[in-house]
Amino acid sequence: MKTTAVFYHAGCPVCVDAEQKLAHALDTQQYQVEIVHLGEQRGRLAEAERLGVKSVPALAIDGNVFHINFGAPLEALK
Amino acid sequence: MKTTAVFYHAGCPVCVDAEQKLAHALDTQQYQVEIVHLGEQRGRLAEAERLGVKSVPALAIDGNVFHINFGAPLEALK
Repeated sequence: MKTTAVFYHAGCPVCVDAEQKLAHALDTQQYQVEIVHLGEQRGRLAEAERLGVKSVPALAIDGNVFHINFGAPLEALK
Repeated sequence: MKTTAVFYHAGCPVCVDAEQKLAHALDTQQYQVEIVHLGEQRGRLAEAERLGVKSVPALAIDGNVFHINFGAPLEALK
């Protein structure tokens, strides 16, 4: 069974770069990668916050949150 | 030809977590992943700095640096 990896972003330049270079570099044989644009999918903000996402871009792998560089704080997307 | 991905760390808990969950999640069919412990391989500090690494853990994919969470500033390793 694949592990879930969710890449949260907000369309910012830092986010797009991380998505293209990092999120797409994950092993899709092992990981089910989902890309979530929190600016467009505000219904997912609570879930991201619950996981511990403080800023975007962030990658949550099996519930572990990795903040990648810094694009925007989660607060700015509410 | 594989793309080079270098994971710079310093053995800190944040680093170890990122190494296990993120660096090892990269697609090894596409990426040649190298793990560099800057505390033990100080000769690589200049290279990391030149790439733009400011703190560890950091992942440099094809020259693009992604700082992942925050373990320690590069300055602390000199």
